[in-house]
Amino acid sequence: MTAVSFTVHATDGGARTGVLELGRGHVRTPAFMPVGTAGTVKAMYMDQVKALGADIILGNTYHLMLRPGAEKVARLGGLHAFGGWQGPILTDSGGFQVMSLSALRKLDADGVTFKSHIDGSMHRLTPERSVEIQTMLDADIVMQLDECVRLPTGRDNVERAMRLSLDWAIRSRQAFGSQPGKAIFGIVQGGDQKDLRVASAAALRAMDFPGYAIGGLAVGEPQEVMLDMIETVEPHLPAAKPRYLMGVGTPDDLVECVGRGIDMFDCVLPTRAGRHGLAYSRFGKINLRNARHAEDARPLDETSSCPAARDYSRAYLHHLTRSGEILGMMLITWINLAYYQELMAGMRDAIASGRFADFGAEVKEGWQRGDIAPL
Amino acid sequence: MTAVSFTVHATDGGARTGVLELGRGHVRTPAFMPVGTAGTVKAMYMDQVKALGADIILGNTYHLMLRPGAEKVARLGGLHAFGGWQGPILTDSGGFQVMSLSALRKLDADGVTFKSHIDGSMHRLTPERSVEIQTMLDADIVMQLDECVRLPTGRDNVERAMRLSLDWAIRSRQAFGSQPGKAIFGIVQGGDQKDLRVASAAALRAMDFPGYAIGGLAVGEPQEVMLDMIETVEPHLPAAKPRYLMGVGTPDDLVECVGRGIDMFDCVLPTRAGRHGLAYSRFGKINLRNARHAEDARPLDETSSCPAARDYSRAYLHHLTRSGEILGMMLITWINLAYYQELMAGMRDAIASGRFADFGAEVKEGWQRGDIAPL
Repeated sequence: MTAVSFTVHATDGGARTGVLELGRGHVRTPAFMPVGTAGTVKAMYMDQVKALGADIILGNTYHLMLRPGAEKVARLGGLHAFGGWQGPILTDSGGFQVMSLSALRKLDADGVTFKSHIDGSMHRLTPERSVEIQTMLDADIVMQLDECVRLPTGRDNVERAMRLSLDWAIRSRQAFGSQPGKAIFGIVQGGDQKDLRVASAAALRAMDFPGYAIGGLAVGEPQEVMLDMIETVEPHLPAAKPRYLMGVGTPDDLVECVGRGIDMFDCVLPTRAGRHGLAYSRFGKINLRNARHAEDARPLDETSSCPAARDYSRAYLHHLTRSGEILGMMLITWINLAYYQELMAGMRDAIASGRFADFGAEVKEGWQRGDIAPL
Repeated sequence: MTAVSFTVHATDGGARTGVLELGRGHVRTPAFMPVGTAGTVKAMYMDQVKALGADIILGNTYHLMLRPGAEKVARLGGLHAFGGWQGPILTDSGGFQVMSLSALRKLDADGVTFKSHIDGSMHRLTPERSVEIQTMLDADIVMQLDECVRLPTGRDNVERAMRLSLDWAIRSRQAFGSQPGKAIFGIVQGGDQKDLRVASAAALRAMDFPGYAIGGLAVGEPQEVMLDMIETVEPHLPAAKPRYLMGVGTPDDLVECVGRGIDMFDCVLPTRAGRHGLAYSRFGKINLRNARHAEDARPLDETSSCPAARDYSRAYLHHLTRSGEILGMMLITWINLAYYQELMAGMRDAIASGRFADFGAEVKEGWQRGDIAPL
């Protein structure tokens, strides 16, 4: 199978469920992509990630180009062989992390020059080089290079970055060419300015990308601003193409955004939080560092299909977290990714059976109710 | 089954193989006990440890008494329920780590008072309290409290510590009483002084312990001194009881010491080294941080039964180690514990079939030959 296709099987209000077919496999949507920054979903074995129901993971171009280097990954057979993930992989363009992580950077119309946060070496990303790197990594979904501005910022700056990103979209699409079984996504920018968001979406749509991302959200603005922007952009994106909201989010964000027509997500939250003792569950967010868990012999969720949530006491998870034990990070990351995938599967089922609104209300009620031992 | 028994099934030169039966299960000897310091074998799931063939693990009284506390572990059902290990557990007495880890300590004839390295709180261990703690943890093998001196040190100091340890052996045995299915081991001390080692062994033998440990070795002395002390002590220990060499060692140490009649070992080396990119294998010690592995697409050992040694390239293990990724620690710890258990199983088989000397020569030849990519 070499053609990329996206099929919406059911809609329910603004929400929709379907399948994105790629050369390396299918992605059931709405989908959450665990973040595999440097060729590893931190503290997880890839077969665990797969077993949780993830169809696709994300890799970070910025990290991989710096270490071990895209050429090296290519010589070793590509990112799939390197990290042991056989399904589809989406890579970001590197642009966002150049802005957030690199020690020093200088943007011009042609690209961005920056200093590695690892060893201080100088590097350059252009739209063409970003696509080249992602192609060497053998990404199944390639993202255009864009410029993402932090909010709040002035309208002039937002507009300049949006226009630059459109120019880079054209160049990225050109550089990508035609790759059987693979796709490149354009990225809508425009900050918190509705008219700029609409202009960005319309211009990208005219370029006929196989998929569209919404970037530059969840960068400091309130959730209502993010949802407002999604509602603004959604009608201007083609219904027949997948919509990916980058870097989002909390379980609540996922439910709210699926309800507004988003098909794909990625976020470091479940993995990063898992390394800091913070668990996501059907009982909401549970901070296992908290002393109230120290003698709680109950598992985090005895009904979970995830052994980490079912077979260890909260007291043990608390102990591991307080002691800085690697197993604590392993177990809570596992719990979080399991919950995220369970939530996505629940949303897919609910949309297919026309009860998405009820499902959303039920999960939120569970988070509100909670299940924490009294002090 | 409530009786503890030890049966030697075969001997080959000084080496022997057998089974130690405890209430919670049997331990095939010679045995290597992975170290589960604070209720977790670091960076491993307990079911992985079990699948590698470990029959018994070790827990550290010092760590567990400080965090989460022995009383808390007891309220949560004991160390087995707490950490999810259903087989036998041996706990040390805490004495060694009071000496090596605590911030401040004062030894007297009755016990030792020390300051926690975690929070500065003051604690006291006596022979009776150590046994009480180990019993609360529900240890299957309890170790007497002893005083272990670092080598080199003066003979007077060695002798004083040995005599104190004998006094504490009596008190520990008394405190242990009779616990069905469980055992307490005495510990031979005496530093690098042969006559003191013999005196210690003879005095302990007269106390008729269910098992005997040799302590105070691998504390800075050359391997030949250690082996000399084992050869000195071994004839003075009853052949019908298990012999446990504490805190040892490298794969080479294990082979040499099994050849001198040792039945049980524990050491942090395979787990600690695994967190620092150092792998133990049939090709010897391989430092995966080394740049020569950066483009080596071969697995560490394609014939291994351990997926971590078989399914990932050395280049990937190198990348993970250099990047400080938790998965690197997980995979290399797994590789090391797999190799240690494989080595023990190989020695047990070789002893049973009367080819222990050949087996030892073969494994050493493999370590010498190595299998590192040329620079």
